[in-house]
Amino acid sequence: MAIETAKTLADDLRAGRKDPVDLVAQVYDRITAHGDGALFTRQTRDRAEAEARAARERLRAGNPASLLDGVPLAWKDLFDLKGTATTAGSSVLRGAAPAATDAALVYAGMRAGLVTVGAVNMTEFAYSGIGLNPHYGTPRNPRDPKVARSPGGSSSGSAAVVAAGIVPLSIGTDTGGSIRIPAAFNGVVGYKTSTGHHPMQGVFPLSRTLDTLGPLANSVEDCVLVDAVLRGMAAPTVRAAEISSLDLVVPDAVMFDDIDPAVAAAFEATLGRLEASGARVRRIALLELRDTVAAMGRYGPLASAEAMEVHWDRLHGPDEARIDPRVVRRIRMGEKMTAVDLIRLHADRARLIAAVNDRLGDALLICPTTPSVAMPTAPLEADVEVFFHHNFRTLRHTAIGNFLDWCGLSIPNGADGDGMPTGLMISARHGRDAALLAAGLALETTIRG
Amino acid sequence: MAIETAKTLADDLRAGRKDPVDLVAQVYDRITAHGDGALFTRQTRDRAEAEARAARERLRAGNPASLLDGVPLAWKDLFDLKGTATTAGSSVLRGAAPAATDAALVYAGMRAGLVTVGAVNMTEFAYSGIGLNPHYGTPRNPRDPKVARSPGGSSSGSAAVVAAGIVPLSIGTDTGGSIRIPAAFNGVVGYKTSTGHHPMQGVFPLSRTLDTLGPLANSVEDCVLVDAVLRGMAAPTVRAAEISSLDLVVPDAVMFDDIDPAVAAAFEATLGRLEASGARVRRIALLELRDTVAAMGRYGPLASAEAMEVHWDRLHGPDEARIDPRVVRRIRMGEKMTAVDLIRLHADRARLIAAVNDRLGDALLICPTTPSVAMPTAPLEADVEVFFHHNFRTLRHTAIGNFLDWCGLSIPNGADGDGMPTGLMISARHGRDAALLAAGLALETTIRG
Repeated sequence: MAIETAKTLADDLRAGRKDPVDLVAQVYDRITAHGDGALFTRQTRDRAEAEARAARERLRAGNPASLLDGVPLAWKDLFDLKGTATTAGSSVLRGAAPAATDAALVYAGMRAGLVTVGAVNMTEFAYSGIGLNPHYGTPRNPRDPKVARSPGGSSSGSAAVVAAGIVPLSIGTDTGGSIRIPAAFNGVVGYKTSTGHHPMQGVFPLSRTLDTLGPLANSVEDCVLVDAVLRGMAAPTVRAAEISSLDLVVPDAVMFDDIDPAVAAAFEATLGRLEASGARVRRIALLELRDTVAAMGRYGPLASAEAMEVHWDRLHGPDEARIDPRVVRRIRMGEKMTAVDLIRLHADRARLIAAVNDRLGDALLICPTTPSVAMPTAPLEADVEVFFHHNFRTLRHTAIGNFLDWCGLSIPNGADGDGMPTGLMISARHGRDAALLAAGLALETTIRG
Repeated sequence: MAIETAKTLADDLRAGRKDPVDLVAQVYDRITAHGDGALFTRQTRDRAEAEARAARERLRAGNPASLLDGVPLAWKDLFDLKGTATTAGSSVLRGAAPAATDAALVYAGMRAGLVTVGAVNMTEFAYSGIGLNPHYGTPRNPRDPKVARSPGGSSSGSAAVVAAGIVPLSIGTDTGGSIRIPAAFNGVVGYKTSTGHHPMQGVFPLSRTLDTLGPLANSVEDCVLVDAVLRGMAAPTVRAAEISSLDLVVPDAVMFDDIDPAVAAAFEATLGRLEASGARVRRIALLELRDTVAAMGRYGPLASAEAMEVHWDRLHGPDEARIDPRVVRRIRMGEKMTAVDLIRLHADRARLIAAVNDRLGDALLICPTTPSVAMPTAPLEADVEVFFHHNFRTLRHTAIGNFLDWCGLSIPNGADGDGMPTGLMISARHGRDAALLAAGLALETTIRG
């Protein structure tokens, strides 16, 4: 299937070459044809058809609600969709009360004419980078038709639904890499916004300090478009950067320890193309990253402590036995943390953010999104220690970005010998989303090779 | 001794009617005449004389550094003064390394021509509202020449040094009431600024979330002046509010439970004068204050957890035995708090701040600063449980303000039958310092009666 971007689709819709109601029917046909029962946890066909009819009227009247009016999209199943129960990937919440209102961002999307086709699967409570889900099944990684491979997590369905060509856009969340990892594993673009960039109201929490959200899409331009539209803007203000103006930094520490040869080779090849295109690329010994990794583990994970607060009652009652033990184990890593530990963890984090920001300045950091491509799931399902090894390894680069409060963009960067995609991650310090996206627009073609 | 305000003194200095070098000599003569060896923990006579000589030159040249050039002041002994050791009221720090630089605010004061005469005593590590200090002695409350009474705490010396007429200004800190309580007990004005209003760099911490600083002085106008000067302003921008424009709220909950009859009588008499002067006074059932008190105790005190982080090594080593056991006991209330408790405490606090701000809006809350006047110290020294009863009672009203992130001003409000002063506290939500001070300027004369 040829890639259809949201931009192309939206242009066709505005020109009358496509119809939003027909598109909705096509989406549900594609879901059926794709045949992965683990992909959607909620389908909202009535809503989608009503929204598509409203979009059709606006488009025919030449009065679109936004640049993406009538474009279908899917939400990670921790966004509240009015009238349906948010599962957060957990069977515990299967019978929860229907959401009384849309999440803030879902409402913003509806006002902009985006058509909500449903909610897609995820790691239970958004807590792993691999994407296994024992309750709703693990979505297949569409890039490998033969072997069942990890779709990445926790926004597993959000990446797979775009990679499968079912919708051109989905919105995920990212607390330790949960947008960027699935994007890399499925060969799509994933954009983790800065904390506070979008409202988190109505989004089931994992870690209130670290949680962010953002799009998964087929191009950086689509990420730029949907980000602008969801913020109520008439058009994006971000433009592609001048390549020669970019200051790209490759950190010598941590990001290249124990990475797969195919990932390293793809990254090195891209560095060559970037330099040939006129970009300035510096390798620096960013030793603060070693201190960062040490600080992230010194007192226990920040996300675990905050998740423990969210799930305290659930983990101290009959529901505990119904939750994936791999998820329970990670949340419980926060149970023994003391208040003093947490205060020190926040203080260490603040110091490291200041130190790294001071070193990086306005430079953009580039590295492989993950140390490996998507791995077959069978060995991970068979042995929990193998699962934990791969989970922590997979999260290593991205989670540094959450801890240091960066924004980040994963762009497809070639593939290994089996055709499995790898990702290149560009990161910028908190709030420099515009510079990050401007670089992504400028470099995407070169990175994709 | 007639009250000499910083304003009067500064006017005399600029007019050449007084000389800053003479003033310094008078200050040290007054210290000797006052005879309370527990008042100063560090005297900085060489520094004061050098600063006074520099001020004299500027004043003679008609080029004063600020509106308060040449005015002497004292600092609570947790502000770093370059070249001397900050004790924070503890014998453990008596031999600490001399501070390499001034605290940020001390430096700002020096640049504005304020003359630092030394550091004054305080509760050890700033952790009680009574002001007892077993290491350096407890400063006498100058309002009772016969019975040794509490000077209030933790900025005990900061209030006593102004009440004794030694200097017209001192700077204290306030984490649970440590400026406003000593101000009330000693019959001076105390201004607790909003968090973040002044830099805390170089100030020994108690609780990084709650710590604030501010002046103790003889008038609201002096507080306004020194606050502006310390912020580098040429002149204050705050002007007295129109009394008829003020919306004063008296909360029916908490603030009048179990208060001394003399304090209640003084407050009620002032309410009558305020209404007669044209101020609007509303009594409202601010039941959120009961929830606030409950939240402050539910998981343990926030200040204890943060102090435990600061003092962890000290309380797990040989120094512990050298610290006031009353202070150790309060810090240790944070030792068992879990990370989840702390996260919930911060979440409860954020919710309560939002709820109370929503109820109060731009109104100013008024209440007695403390439920009692300064009590004799002998019974507090004799029985630790009596001490804790009085300590928590004394902190009750002010600590609510810290928890709800208010700014506040304590203004002398009459006296009991023994001539011991009581205070009236005006509070405003975070950041409304200008409105708070404008009300204080307008109401001070009426409140003082």
